[in-house]
Amino acid sequence: MADESREETTCDRREFFQAGAFGVAGAVVAGGASNTPDDSADVAAREAETKAAATRGGGRAWPDRPEGWWRHQNAVLPPSEAPAQEIREVELDIQIIKHEIVPGYSFHVLAFNGQVPGPELRFREGEWVKVYFTNRTELMHTIHWHGVDLQYENDGVPYTTQHPVMPNATFEYTFQAIPAGTRLYHCHFGTPLHMQHAMHGALIIEPEQDPIKEEFGYTRDYTLVLESFATNDARDDLNFMLERMKQRMWLMKEGALDEETLAVFESKETFLAAIDRGWDPPYLPNRNQKRERAAQDYNFFAINGKAYPLTAPIMIRRGETIRVRLINGGGLMHHMHLHGHQFWQVAEDGNVLSSPLQINTISVGPGKTADIIIEGYNPGYWTFHDHDTSRVTNNGMYPGGMLTMLVYEEMDDYDGYHPKIALDE
Amino acid sequence: MADESREETTCDRREFFQAGAFGVAGAVVAGGASNTPDDSADVAAREAETKAAATRGGGRAWPDRPEGWWRHQNAVLPPSEAPAQEIREVELDIQIIKHEIVPGYSFHVLAFNGQVPGPELRFREGEWVKVYFTNRTELMHTIHWHGVDLQYENDGVPYTTQHPVMPNATFEYTFQAIPAGTRLYHCHFGTPLHMQHAMHGALIIEPEQDPIKEEFGYTRDYTLVLESFATNDARDDLNFMLERMKQRMWLMKEGALDEETLAVFESKETFLAAIDRGWDPPYLPNRNQKRERAAQDYNFFAINGKAYPLTAPIMIRRGETIRVRLINGGGLMHHMHLHGHQFWQVAEDGNVLSSPLQINTISVGPGKTADIIIEGYNPGYWTFHDHDTSRVTNNGMYPGGMLTMLVYEEMDDYDGYHPKIALDE
Amino acid sequence: MADESREETTCDRREFFQAGAFGVAGAVVAGGASNTPDDSADVAAREAETKAAATRGGGRAWPDRPEGWWRHQNAVLPPSEAPAQEIREVELDIQIIKHEIVPGYSFHVLAFNGQVPGPELRFREGEWVKVYFTNRTELMHTIHWHGVDLQYENDGVPYTTQHPVMPNATFEYTFQAIPAGTRLYHCHFGTPLHMQHAMHGALIIEPEQDPIKEEFGYTRDYTLVLESFATNDARDDLNFMLERMKQRMWLMKEGALDEETLAVFESKETFLAAIDRGWDPPYLPNRNQKRERAAQDYNFFAINGKAYPLTAPIMIRRGETIRVRLINGGGLMHHMHLHGHQFWQVAEDGNVLSSPLQINTISVGPGKTADIIIEGYNPGYWTFHDHDTSRVTNNGMYPGGMLTMLVYEEMDDYDGYHPKIALDE
Repeated sequence: MADESREETTCDRREFFQAGAFGVAGAVVAGGASNTPDDSADVAAREAETKAAATRGGGRAWPDRPEGWWRHQNAVLPPSEAPAQEIREVELDIQIIKHEIVPGYSFHVLAFNGQVPGPELRFREGEWVKVYFTNRTELMHTIHWHGVDLQYENDGVPYTTQHPVMPNATFEYTFQAIPAGTRLYHCHFGTPLHMQHAMHGALIIEPEQDPIKEEFGYTRDYTLVLESFATNDARDDLNFMLERMKQRMWLMKEGALDEETLAVFESKETFLAAIDRGWDPPYLPNRNQKRERAAQDYNFFAINGKAYPLTAPIMIRRGETIRVRLINGGGLMHHMHLHGHQFWQVAEDGNVLSSPLQINTISVGPGKTADIIIEGYNPGYWTFHDHDTSRVTNNGMYPGGMLTMLVYEEMDDYDGYHPKIALDE
Repeated sequence: MADESREETTCDRREFFQAGAFGVAGAVVAGGASNTPDDSADVAAREAETKAAATRGGGRAWPDRPEGWWRHQNAVLPPSEAPAQEIREVELDIQIIKHEIVPGYSFHVLAFNGQVPGPELRFREGEWVKVYFTNRTELMHTIHWHGVDLQYENDGVPYTTQHPVMPNATFEYTFQAIPAGTRLYHCHFGTPLHMQHAMHGALIIEPEQDPIKEEFGYTRDYTLVLESFATNDARDDLNFMLERMKQRMWLMKEGALDEETLAVFESKETFLAAIDRGWDPPYLPNRNQKRERAAQDYNFFAINGKAYPLTAPIMIRRGETIRVRLINGGGLMHHMHLHGHQFWQVAEDGNVLSSPLQINTISVGPGKTADIIIEGYNPGYWTFHDHDTSRVTNNGMYPGGMLTMLVYEEMDDYDGYHPKIALDE
Repeated sequence: MADESREETTCDRREFFQAGAFGVAGAVVAGGASNTPDDSADVAAREAETKAAATRGGGRAWPDRPEGWWRHQNAVLPPSEAPAQEIREVELDIQIIKHEIVPGYSFHVLAFNGQVPGPELRFREGEWVKVYFTNRTELMHTIHWHGVDLQYENDGVPYTTQHPVMPNATFEYTFQAIPAGTRLYHCHFGTPLHMQHAMHGALIIEPEQDPIKEEFGYTRDYTLVLESFATNDARDDLNFMLERMKQRMWLMKEGALDEETLAVFESKETFLAAIDRGWDPPYLPNRNQKRERAAQDYNFFAINGKAYPLTAPIMIRRGETIRVRLINGGGLMHHMHLHGHQFWQVAEDGNVLSSPLQINTISVGPGKTADIIIEGYNPGYWTFHDHDTSRVTNNGMYPGGMLTMLVYEEMDDYDGYHPKIALDE
């Protein structure tokens, strides 16, 4: 099933790849963006080896696809390649705020720019971005750009790609927004506490010509960030962390914050050497007893920061088609069921599916994204909720939590049943 | 890859769609079935807008498919369109019964027609159905037809599409059985308790010509409803609800059941006004303390109402092919593994997959359905069970729960190992 | 889309199938391998019935595929068909060892050949294998070959396909390694304890010509066994089981180990008769109180037997492509996220996907396997971890557990950020 236009694209990709797309060493950019070494001769040789192994003729798993159909499309360029005049600048900070998830119930969370979820970032595919991230809390943080192919020192993993961002510091993340698709960003320091409570937000990279837009012609585009909170655990953890950070800062000032106290080691070898010397790692049972627990006790759930009955409805009109981007910013898998319609899942983790899926309930794991297309063929009021209904609760009480509604605008003129608010079935 | 027969179908769908398939205002039918307003000129305009955006030529995500391949196939008609003489009538009630899941252990559940799971409903695609639902309990209920595209006031969501069905009342649900596929029905009032304990049942809509039957020629068709129970939580909840309902009925008789006591409000505005006036919503911590909990403590699991060793085997003969419809009526995801065979997943949520999947373990989320085809190529006794084996238990004891067996009829004549019953490994 | 080469293969399969591929009765082989009866006339008749139902012309779900595309490819042969001189012999035993998952923390587990996970078994597709399994513990065990199509008495399910393997006994499993793909083996006695703690291992069946190898030409092939442990529960269970086994062995010696004590019955009928006689089944609440619990309290997580910081990195070079086989040997679903890359899922449960999936986070359920292909297009240090970060912990402390790293070999020469070890964020 030869597709000529696809083969040309494949050739283009190969040429781009072979022409040393990994760049040359350049200036170090503030905040940690650097180049990785260039050994294109070696790369070419390995590519040839890969190709030889692959193109032995016949027997390919997907022989109808052109060779190399699977290769990545955009080279990952280091920040030094960013054209200075065209960089999109974004300011993000992190604050501790009190967030009201339902009327009467608030709890402290870590919030990008003081909001839950963090601001939705929308970039054009290929756009260069520089994010100035300022830490206005007394804890340490990073930002990981989940699903973005970027130069590793901008990947935001503490002690793997950078030092954590200290209180009052500003860190610069520089990257090119690739590949296109529905993605997310979140903290990667102390992740179980930080990411879920509530350092996460949508990151949408829009292609110049969107094949999903071409296919469906949707006229509205919604983002639903799915969130899960364990507020009692979070409160205890946050307090513990703030207290501990005070101690660590004091030790740092005294020049007395050693590897063992911080539990950070230069390498596996120095770590094992400390163990040999008799150091007790912090994960041993009965040590740090207060923090030992197996699972988080989730008690609140939200979509875009609010729980039912304060979730915002998804609006649609008869004959219209809309796009809904589901982003799981929490620690649980959610099984989102839409009443009265089948919908199409068209992308997963931001990437267009070869085989779109027609379903009415979609299971979205932690950190995953899913794009669905809803066709407006059935006017009414349609519940859209997690089918594990223990998440459709506020503090254990049903209904609440992860529940919203698809609402047809025509219903305003309809003389029939209109929804009430119910809080305790 | 133009497929002429498909394009004709697409044209047919478009013509049907444009001809005002949404009907005209008509009489109100008992039980809440009504028409939604007709503004076909507007709809046509929006469709044109959608098409224009979509058919800009080139760049579609799935260009080999005919345009509009994704559009819904059957218009959703209001009950007024039902031809009076040809309506299939079904009587369902709800009762509280004591259900014996394994010998010696029974617990009270809500049961459609006094059985667990509720009766399997099988309709022809396009058939009009009227369900008379009678509430023989002292609690409130509804029935949601999960995966059916129907007129919204028959969707069964309390306070969204109807008032809950009161004790002793009969509610009429009227809908056309579309689309074809393996679906389910369940209560949508107090769902964590009601649906799982055990107001759920299979709803199978059979197409006149079943493409899966055409493809595989299977000669047996099994339905497996997967169930999870938290019997101690359920007992406490059921008692609490019955007690509370008594109080509410008395208040209602006294004309003293106000919004705040019932926790049901006309709108978001009146709800927020109550909060402003100082009303404490029921989800606040320390209020209704007895009912505050994060997760249900599941201790029993079943297939079609019974736990191992009382699960019914799936029978097959060598050379035969069978269809198994998995329906998840509980709150957990189950990972069903069949020994000795690979099988094909051919549908998800009742809809045929573009790309069938050959696996031996299938993960089915809450509220989801999956159709699999098993080819009888390996005679024997083959365990079929949840691979999260904490569900293959009765009250924590392994083996039990969600475990059944694929049994070849030839085994009766076989002189080798035959299964025993084991209850405590 | 007729594919001539495929149709020939289909015909070949059909002929092979009809020629009585199920063999004839033969000698009983030590360890339980036997033949199943041959009634090929009946089989042929049922096949014809299936075909007639299926080939009614038009209306097939996947009409572009050749007829019978879905039929199994290899007949399952009984051990008597194994050519004596060419059987690959494998010795496996089971021992109780103390396993150190992170420095300073060890716990007792059941370990195949004294290692966690059990040894990786790699066979050629179609190879005959005889496994001598010796039980060097005081408990009972079996081995189930998950995903292998074999003669049922070698399937390893206690009381379904064989008696459990007693202390000091050796059991022989004989089977042909089909179908090709990434699979696993694990104990199926007392599975929640035995399989997870830690009787599981990789079983890889390599085809002579691997279509995935042909397609991608990968030059490294990694196996990652994902593991979850509830060490406190496991310790209690193991002690309880060992104690109980002592009692049972003594009763057996005294000739006093009856059905009721062992809780094993010949049939459903004798089981129900015992209930009628007043026998209390062991799953009743308050009986065996010590062992009644709903869920396991998971506190440690590993990849190939080790938790971070002792997980081994996955190495790659720029321009290289590698294959990673994910195998879930535990009781939880894991959501593996790779930083800095999209990857392709190319197989599920060992079987090549019709439609490969481009994602960056993959959800793998208990007992499932997934093959992914990673293209080396982005040099750096890339975290690869469960995105439900409660599993990225050691004893509740983050980071730890199910976390490893994709490391580019070029990084040795790179003058930038190199990872540290962090244990307590």
